[in-house]
Amino acid sequence: MSLVAPIEYAAATPQVRAIYDDIMATRRIPSVNNFWMVLAHDPANLARVWADVKAVMADGALDPLVKEMLYVAVSVTNGCGYCIASHTAGARKAGMSEAMFGELMAVVGMANETNRLANGFRVPIDAAFMD
Amino acid sequence: MSLVAPIEYAAATPQVRAIYDDIMATRRIPSVNNFWMVLAHDPANLARVWADVKAVMADGALDPLVKEMLYVAVSVTNGCGYCIASHTAGARKAGMSEAMFGELMAVVGMANETNRLANGFRVPIDAAFMD
Amino acid sequence: MSLVAPIEYAAATPQVRAIYDDIMATRRIPSVNNFWMVLAHDPANLARVWADVKAVMADGALDPLVKEMLYVAVSVTNGCGYCIASHTAGARKAGMSEAMFGELMAVVGMANETNRLANGFRVPIDAAFMD
Amino acid sequence: MSLVAPIEYAAATPQVRAIYDDIMATRRIPSVNNFWMVLAHDPANLARVWADVKAVMADGALDPLVKEMLYVAVSVTNGCGYCIASHTAGARKAGMSEAMFGELMAVVGMANETNRLANGFRVPIDAAFMD
Amino acid sequence: MSLVAPIEYAAATPQVRAIYDDIMATRRIPSVNNFWMVLAHDPANLARVWADVKAVMADGALDPLVKEMLYVAVSVTNGCGYCIASHTAGARKAGMSEAMFGELMAVVGMANETNRLANGFRVPIDAAFMD
Amino acid sequence: MSLVAPIEYAAATPQVRAIYDDIMATRRIPSVNNFWMVLAHDPANLARVWADVKAVMADGALDPLVKEMLYVAVSVTNGCGYCIASHTAGARKAGMSEAMFGELMAVVGMANETNRLANGFRVPIDAAFMD
Repeated sequence: MSLVAPIEYAAATPQVRAIYDDIMATRRIPSVNNFWMVLAHDPANLARVWADVKAVMADGALDPLVKEMLYVAVSVTNGCGYCIASHTAGARKAGMSEAMFGELMAVVGMANETNRLANGFRVPIDAAFMD
Repeated sequence: MSLVAPIEYAAATPQVRAIYDDIMATRRIPSVNNFWMVLAHDPANLARVWADVKAVMADGALDPLVKEMLYVAVSVTNGCGYCIASHTAGARKAGMSEAMFGELMAVVGMANETNRLANGFRVPIDAAFMD
Repeated sequence: MSLVAPIEYAAATPQVRAIYDDIMATRRIPSVNNFWMVLAHDPANLARVWADVKAVMADGALDPLVKEMLYVAVSVTNGCGYCIASHTAGARKAGMSEAMFGELMAVVGMANETNRLANGFRVPIDAAFMD
Repeated sequence: MSLVAPIEYAAATPQVRAIYDDIMATRRIPSVNNFWMVLAHDPANLARVWADVKAVMADGALDPLVKEMLYVAVSVTNGCGYCIASHTAGARKAGMSEAMFGELMAVVGMANETNRLANGFRVPIDAAFMD
Repeated sequence: MSLVAPIEYAAATPQVRAIYDDIMATRRIPSVNNFWMVLAHDPANLARVWADVKAVMADGALDPLVKEMLYVAVSVTNGCGYCIASHTAGARKAGMSEAMFGELMAVVGMANETNRLANGFRVPIDAAFMD
Repeated sequence: MSLVAPIEYAAATPQVRAIYDDIMATRRIPSVNNFWMVLAHDPANLARVWADVKAVMADGALDPLVKEMLYVAVSVTNGCGYCIASHTAGARKAGMSEAMFGELMAVVGMANETNRLANGFRVPIDAAFMD
């Protein structure tokens, strides 16, 4: 179904296994999900994307739950089924309740609506927002 | 520049003024921004959209700052210049620091990247995400 | 401001002028808008796109007003400023009232909202819709 | 398959059933489709979204068939499979023939093409469209 | 599964068969793919879209492989599963290696990321890019 | 106009200047464009994004001209004005002629059209594309 088959841990090179190990350790999960096993066909790209995701999603000025919810908001807006599934799971693991998910979805829906109203009516940006 | 001119408070009907008053009171702002003043040409629609935004953005399972940041994430993904400007201002007012904004933008960028990698490689959804 | 300068009628080749003439005659307008004058740098592409637009937007099972409004709905969803401006003008010329434009925008906003709710909750398609 | 299971009529609370009843009566359909049964996990949000859709899609300056076709145009542009299926069904029920659907799709395709040509060539908006 | 059933060669009219023949001859393929067999319900539209695709994808200033890869880049960005599948197949047939596909995907991912960073930070266009 | 002011070379820290120097040396340009000077407010993020872009856009299985054109195709599809301007300039510098740009735009337009036709008619993926 995927354009390239996922590379399972047992079939991976030591270089790729080391990245899989880091993914599992960082996220405290027992196995690596398909996204990374598909990227593994190009180990350099796998290493690069994982390093980016690890850095960007780390605890910082924003906590991991907020970051996962932002990821869901973007994925829903773009209609990426895989990403909605994986990051909704990630957000739940980080503490997102059903009530929080419902409110997240309501905000995403509303933002997608008013984005079009603002564009469609060509609303001029207020001077107060330009500071 | 907008397709219809914003209706200023002084020129608004009592029905529209009442909505403007509620917007200013709810958000604790001294004037209404152009988005609402453009929508005001259709008072019923203005009332409906404002009631929605008021309900969706209210404090709930998610706090207003998180909601504003989710709004920014969607608006950036859709490329809505007006909405980026207005909701970045809203998020800052709700407490978003520059460091938080930087991390928000990094997550939005990363999500837009991996959304395409997942779609482009047609990564199959893991059984673990389907529960 | 555009990446290539519009080619005005006076500066156009006879081949391009013939297309400009057909655009003006078909739409009953006194001059050609910038979109076509920018495409004119590649006369074959100009001819192809104009022939497509002329065929697709002609009166048929759907009348020209409905077609212009569909064009606006897509352009607003995609956030194409030029296309919103030109096709809103086209729709008005074809008879769109302010009330119709307001309802069009409300539908576009609502559809953009519920599109994300359906995607985000991964709502399964009803058997009744699969017939 | 959906992130939350649809709530069937028999399992719904009286509050949710009242909304289901209104959906079926308004649309003259014998059962509620999955979209609403998924939203029903958050009754307040279900009530809000249904009230919006009911108001926006009601007969007005635009008739219900045109509104359904606009909904399809947006859903196709966004690639929302569920919404394409449900609103194509809705449009057909409101009178859309196969010929009308074919022309609708042709317009949507054409608009998506020229939206990119206008953006990509950065075509300046004609003064005539700014009135 | 499709909204209208594909029209197989054996069931097609002579007019449609002539287009199918041209598709198979132009692409040196033994059968027509579903996209065209679905469009065939409206022979005039089938003829128009095929003539466009044939003209646009022909060898020119850009070779067919580059054109297929550009098609994939757009289809991945839009999340069109059918188009990703068909044009990835087309690009491979035109000579795209796995390494080339990997780099194509990396560029598409990166562009989708920086598109949002540029929009989100509202980066002003450099004077040097306006020449 | 941007949400944060670009940080000019003279005002940058040594850490940021080192990245600016690498950008100018890698691209053989005399100054850094606004995108990087805006990102510089968060030096760690600037370093990360630049390292990614440098790696992804380097000569490899695909040459830099093809990569720049893919970047333009994505940016046009997303409607990112800044990115269209900067990567069109980059593609021209890498050898893109006006004829090549015209064909690139024609492919992008066509792909955006047929993406919607495939989605809208819900065309089933051919078995031949699933191998």
